[in-house]
Amino acid sequence: MDRLLIDRLIIEALKEDMPYGDVTTDNVFDDSHMSEAFFVAKQSGIICGVGVAKRVFEILDETLVTDHELEDGEPVKEGDIILEIRGRTKALLKGERTALNLIQRMSGISTTTWEYVKEAEGYGARITDTRKTTPMLRYLEKYAVTIGGGHNHRFSLSDAAMLKDNHIDALGGMIKAVSVLRKKLPHTMKIEVEADSMEKVSLAIEAKADIIMLDNMSIEQMKKAVEYINKRAVVEASGNVTKEKIRAIAQTGVDIISSGKLTHSVQALDISMKIRKNI
Amino acid sequence: MDRLLIDRLIIEALKEDMPYGDVTTDNVFDDSHMSEAFFVAKQSGIICGVGVAKRVFEILDETLVTDHELEDGEPVKEGDIILEIRGRTKALLKGERTALNLIQRMSGISTTTWEYVKEAEGYGARITDTRKTTPMLRYLEKYAVTIGGGHNHRFSLSDAAMLKDNHIDALGGMIKAVSVLRKKLPHTMKIEVEADSMEKVSLAIEAKADIIMLDNMSIEQMKKAVEYINKRAVVEASGNVTKEKIRAIAQTGVDIISSGKLTHSVQALDISMKIRKNI
Amino acid sequence: MDRLLIDRLIIEALKEDMPYGDVTTDNVFDDSHMSEAFFVAKQSGIICGVGVAKRVFEILDETLVTDHELEDGEPVKEGDIILEIRGRTKALLKGERTALNLIQRMSGISTTTWEYVKEAEGYGARITDTRKTTPMLRYLEKYAVTIGGGHNHRFSLSDAAMLKDNHIDALGGMIKAVSVLRKKLPHTMKIEVEADSMEKVSLAIEAKADIIMLDNMSIEQMKKAVEYINKRAVVEASGNVTKEKIRAIAQTGVDIISSGKLTHSVQALDISMKIRKNI
Amino acid sequence: MDRLLIDRLIIEALKEDMPYGDVTTDNVFDDSHMSEAFFVAKQSGIICGVGVAKRVFEILDETLVTDHELEDGEPVKEGDIILEIRGRTKALLKGERTALNLIQRMSGISTTTWEYVKEAEGYGARITDTRKTTPMLRYLEKYAVTIGGGHNHRFSLSDAAMLKDNHIDALGGMIKAVSVLRKKLPHTMKIEVEADSMEKVSLAIEAKADIIMLDNMSIEQMKKAVEYINKRAVVEASGNVTKEKIRAIAQTGVDIISSGKLTHSVQALDISMKIRKNI
Amino acid sequence: MDRLLIDRLIIEALKEDMPYGDVTTDNVFDDSHMSEAFFVAKQSGIICGVGVAKRVFEILDETLVTDHELEDGEPVKEGDIILEIRGRTKALLKGERTALNLIQRMSGISTTTWEYVKEAEGYGARITDTRKTTPMLRYLEKYAVTIGGGHNHRFSLSDAAMLKDNHIDALGGMIKAVSVLRKKLPHTMKIEVEADSMEKVSLAIEAKADIIMLDNMSIEQMKKAVEYINKRAVVEASGNVTKEKIRAIAQTGVDIISSGKLTHSVQALDISMKIRKNI
Amino acid sequence: MDRLLIDRLIIEALKEDMPYGDVTTDNVFDDSHMSEAFFVAKQSGIICGVGVAKRVFEILDETLVTDHELEDGEPVKEGDIILEIRGRTKALLKGERTALNLIQRMSGISTTTWEYVKEAEGYGARITDTRKTTPMLRYLEKYAVTIGGGHNHRFSLSDAAMLKDNHIDALGGMIKAVSVLRKKLPHTMKIEVEADSMEKVSLAIEAKADIIMLDNMSIEQMKKAVEYINKRAVVEASGNVTKEKIRAIAQTGVDIISSGKLTHSVQALDISMKIRKNI
Repeated sequence: MDRLLIDRLIIEALKEDMPYGDVTTDNVFDDSHMSEAFFVAKQSGIICGVGVAKRVFEILDETLVTDHELEDGEPVKEGDIILEIRGRTKALLKGERTALNLIQRMSGISTTTWEYVKEAEGYGARITDTRKTTPMLRYLEKYAVTIGGGHNHRFSLSDAAMLKDNHIDALGGMIKAVSVLRKKLPHTMKIEVEADSMEKVSLAIEAKADIIMLDNMSIEQMKKAVEYINKRAVVEASGNVTKEKIRAIAQTGVDIISSGKLTHSVQALDISMKIRKNI
Repeated sequence: MDRLLIDRLIIEALKEDMPYGDVTTDNVFDDSHMSEAFFVAKQSGIICGVGVAKRVFEILDETLVTDHELEDGEPVKEGDIILEIRGRTKALLKGERTALNLIQRMSGISTTTWEYVKEAEGYGARITDTRKTTPMLRYLEKYAVTIGGGHNHRFSLSDAAMLKDNHIDALGGMIKAVSVLRKKLPHTMKIEVEADSMEKVSLAIEAKADIIMLDNMSIEQMKKAVEYINKRAVVEASGNVTKEKIRAIAQTGVDIISSGKLTHSVQALDISMKIRKNI
Repeated sequence: MDRLLIDRLIIEALKEDMPYGDVTTDNVFDDSHMSEAFFVAKQSGIICGVGVAKRVFEILDETLVTDHELEDGEPVKEGDIILEIRGRTKALLKGERTALNLIQRMSGISTTTWEYVKEAEGYGARITDTRKTTPMLRYLEKYAVTIGGGHNHRFSLSDAAMLKDNHIDALGGMIKAVSVLRKKLPHTMKIEVEADSMEKVSLAIEAKADIIMLDNMSIEQMKKAVEYINKRAVVEASGNVTKEKIRAIAQTGVDIISSGKLTHSVQALDISMKIRKNI
Repeated sequence: MDRLLIDRLIIEALKEDMPYGDVTTDNVFDDSHMSEAFFVAKQSGIICGVGVAKRVFEILDETLVTDHELEDGEPVKEGDIILEIRGRTKALLKGERTALNLIQRMSGISTTTWEYVKEAEGYGARITDTRKTTPMLRYLEKYAVTIGGGHNHRFSLSDAAMLKDNHIDALGGMIKAVSVLRKKLPHTMKIEVEADSMEKVSLAIEAKADIIMLDNMSIEQMKKAVEYINKRAVVEASGNVTKEKIRAIAQTGVDIISSGKLTHSVQALDISMKIRKNI
Repeated sequence: MDRLLIDRLIIEALKEDMPYGDVTTDNVFDDSHMSEAFFVAKQSGIICGVGVAKRVFEILDETLVTDHELEDGEPVKEGDIILEIRGRTKALLKGERTALNLIQRMSGISTTTWEYVKEAEGYGARITDTRKTTPMLRYLEKYAVTIGGGHNHRFSLSDAAMLKDNHIDALGGMIKAVSVLRKKLPHTMKIEVEADSMEKVSLAIEAKADIIMLDNMSIEQMKKAVEYINKRAVVEASGNVTKEKIRAIAQTGVDIISSGKLTHSVQALDISMKIRKNI
Repeated sequence: MDRLLIDRLIIEALKEDMPYGDVTTDNVFDDSHMSEAFFVAKQSGIICGVGVAKRVFEILDETLVTDHELEDGEPVKEGDIILEIRGRTKALLKGERTALNLIQRMSGISTTTWEYVKEAEGYGARITDTRKTTPMLRYLEKYAVTIGGGHNHRFSLSDAAMLKDNHIDALGGMIKAVSVLRKKLPHTMKIEVEADSMEKVSLAIEAKADIIMLDNMSIEQMKKAVEYINKRAVVEASGNVTKEKIRAIAQTGVDIISSGKLTHSVQALDISMKIRKNI
């Protein structure tokens, strides 16, 4: 996590939560009042975003000291201490909600990813995210997927090509489309194509696509596609992937299982911050 | 929804999704290629964010024309058309994911809120959100709660006072705390206090708090608290509120049921965008 | 004062004052040249903005050391030292005008507020600001009002409701208006209504408005209104409030006297910065 | 006034006034409700900022239509219509305060400047502003000074050199200082020096300074300085200039009278916005 | 070119060129003064940035009308009209320098690229850019390379992996490095490795790198490397590539010739803007 | 160089180079891995931008330590160490390209300027830049010109007036134009006029222009103009100035030789960064 890439988000999130300060805390505590607080897990999961949460408080309080900091990726269970912080009471109370909103979401993503990854274990398929992330939080959410043992798909429309039906039709069919695009695309980029039928899979192979996305195929279709492709391209399964379906999909032999659910429908991990004592 | 308050978010979200443009689309279509697309519901729910989705495309394409636009708050079922748009194919393809990421999340929130509201129906309790929203999206998420029939709690730390234990201890007890804060706070603001016991409820009443939040109380405790308070303050129930518990809580007679789950653990509503034809 | 809420303003203000640096100072001093400077009052008043002025220099010079720092709210008279700073000469000279522009304005506001507050002393009426503040400086100006012993009115259009004639007409009269709005508004917010006649005051009471603003009423009218309202709502006097009128208004028994003049027509407090010596 | 240079300020000012929208107006009017409003002068003065006020509403409402628009610089008296606007009621009510905060301040500055200019009339002295402007508003405030018949001093530390005692001492005296600086400075820039004694005036002439600022001199001293300088440099009078002193200063024959008061202690011109009718 | 990706740059560039407006033009012309201007080539080359130049003026003047607009990529010779614009004289004069600074640079890049491409013609090697671009202008500069017939290398550190000696050493050698990285990297990304010797080339092939960059190799070495690699990886030649060397390098059979010079040492194409007449 | 004026540029440039981090480095090194690197000249020149390069790394790594830092303006030859830095390996590798892109460009400008300045030596003419700078980099590029021994021309359209034919025609001829403008312009600003004939030079003198720009004149014409002007105005030679022409132009006796080439067609100085060892 580069500060460079998260500081502006944190600053804007804090301002969103207090455009005119904290009318309660600002009227109760002065700047010299110090406290000690800790973050504690209230359910089991894979922790993620400790550094981000810590950074929230550093931005509010240059005197902040931290302790007992878990590393992103460590499993936690109810009652586990995640992070201790000591600093200005005002900063602790003002940063609490923003820090929790971030660490709970990130830990929710890494926890769910980890559950998906376990389902796929032993079959060689990667679990990846998609571009179905929360606006402004993609960098954090994709990071959380890797912390949960998953992998990233492309970051944005700028870093890999994905040919869908509209593109393919406009270019005159799959084979011509891949060929035309390959000629224009940076040599550092791969081409992925969507295929929702064996016919398209076959064309994609002929077109020498780097990656073939099996779009909403049945388990049976996937098996046939994997066999047909036979390592000539990376095979990605996509379309309403849920935890329940992961194992069956993984068993088909696909290389990649991508799931939008990891990021578009996050279950926040329950974490709370407690003020232990004034110091 | 004020453009003023959403345009910057949309622009930044689009840049997040294409820091260097769309390497597929930019290499396939030119600016004169026009298409017609539509948004369609793939499951039932309460639609929210139609104007936001539309704005995504307007920002990308000043020639955009829309049609069949549902109003936020309308119920949809699988297959319902939500919005039709005609414009540059490049703009449609580039804006698709950002528009969907926003409208799916917002519709997910309004749909869940509406389910909560129905549970509370007939008991006079409002369903409200909390500050457990996604960083940078609070304005959109709180709007979605109202579209689902819910109400907003305070927007931020700046618009209402909320006394928690730390504040109360620092000021020397509940009664003194409310009194001191009232003297400092703008006369336009209310004071809410957290109470996790009948003793605190009683102190809160004596302190003349405007709103009393019953913090993680049992149904029995809530009933007693509501009776005791007897309209002398607004009563809010809070703490791990789930849809299953709503009715029982509402029956206690509380005025407000606030739930972080509405926004911190959103289930996106399934919506997709289809390119109907080139035009 | 949260750095979070003032740093961007200070940085932009400094850039406004030197888009291409300081052509005098940059050609005279090098970075190793150090000086000691102090801020001195040139007239009596209530100082406000010391931390803001200091922050201007901290942003320009990470080596800055300060001394003899007055606290916001302390009274000063001509010749009093407000703040001493030691650091890079370049930083001192470049930050001087921006720091003075801020501290002089803030001290001007706190000084005038204090004069208004003294006029109202003994009658129980608060002096409050309005939304007639300088664009971009509202947070600083509202802070300065509190430092002068005044109180804040609502911070913005987002934190309390204010029903004016247009709203009331659109909703079908005062009673309906308050009722409709109350149903929609967050339970954490109050409703204020404008009333320029006893008839409207009476309707406002019937409507159960939280706050009634007596709009441009005569002293006599105010007295009658206060009597009639009889603590059933907070009473605010508003409209061309000048220092000369404060006492008479306060004597009517109103709870709040709000004055736009405190912030829209500021008399800057005369303060200057002197370079004492090079060090 | 370039939109380029004011749009961001207006947008930020509007967001400052409604981080979460207008809780009153948003709950009363819908987007289709249209009204007609007008700005009216409530005291005499020189109007300034009409285009800025109009721009506030254009940013909120792309359908806005205006009428009866006065030009900046026109004199107004109580009751004069300054601008009429027709558009969305929501936009009119949300933009009202920001528009007024800007036009009242700008008109206050142009009005006071015009009074100063009249005092100096017939003596050939320009009235100029200083860098004692409101942070973030310098471009608007300096524009208002010109609208009132005054002139601008340097815009910032980047566009002209001003040697003060600290610079002069560091460079080894006035003559050397001007010479050293002239060698480094762009040939497009002038050098101004501060002089608080005839001795310094004499050195400044010897040093060939372009502009000599007579710093806090008495009327007698100024006269002698003007005579001595005898057109060999532009002569500027500075230091606690008030309207009462202008004529006497102008009579000394100085070229420039600069006054910080024009911008650091603005008396807002009383203007209000009225909603005439719904349309 | 997406407006979304260039508007902010243009706005900031214009503000850089007139933080306080144009003191000449603002004092000469009023807003109603209209003119017609045209851009004309003063030397031969490949034009690029016409839309960007036009956008500069659109941002300054919403009434702008254009004519005779060349398409990016068209060859021009001295005297050719590139673009005609009609609009406010103030906008034309204020935008002139910023528009020229952009179009001259972009056309300089496309012209040089085109010369490089011609040198390589017939040998199947692509000419590509590098990350040695001007800070803040990468998107524009990489676009200009494609307009000149060249191709893009990776856009940033985020879209493809490039293993240099430091990375390889840290991971325990080339083979392990590629393998470790492949396991972590998104499946949509390629791995390029730097090789400055045949030994490293051989290891890179064994490691199954996607792209091998021959780093500062002699023509002889390149030939041997190309033969050895034999299509098992994309081969890129890099290191102080000048136009003079292109053909010889292309003849070695490499796939890619990347040159930092295309963007780090741009020769601006000579273009000027003329005001034809007032209209 | 004020941090205030360069930090935002550096941060944005770094984000441009890694919107989603560095996919190579982030997958190879962890935050505790430290290295030592140095910048070394690969050709002779005048170094410029050392502080800027250093600042790139400081922004990425708050633990950074530097050593052997050359001062801007020092001559370097191939092999000279320019700067040593020790810090996080991740920060060194991520900042490398941005730092080089800036220091190579700045050093290229200062080196070329120095060559121009040497050509003019002994004739009393200044070499200056123009406004033909790279958008967003003007402050850095103008600084580099001064480091190379050159001088700055005006920074922007806001700090000096330049009358071109369009302005002059609109105001009714040169004499009237200068007179009208002088009356409006701040007294701190100079007026420069373009003259492409002796007739215009003569009018410019009569008009009392401060600076006369001889626009694309021949050497002979320049000589005559200089003689005619005879110190009554600053004389600037402009128009396709190349190093080869400098001496002849300087010999004409002009005061200023301005060249757009210094900044619009920069030859980057060859500098590279080497990681010496891990530490």
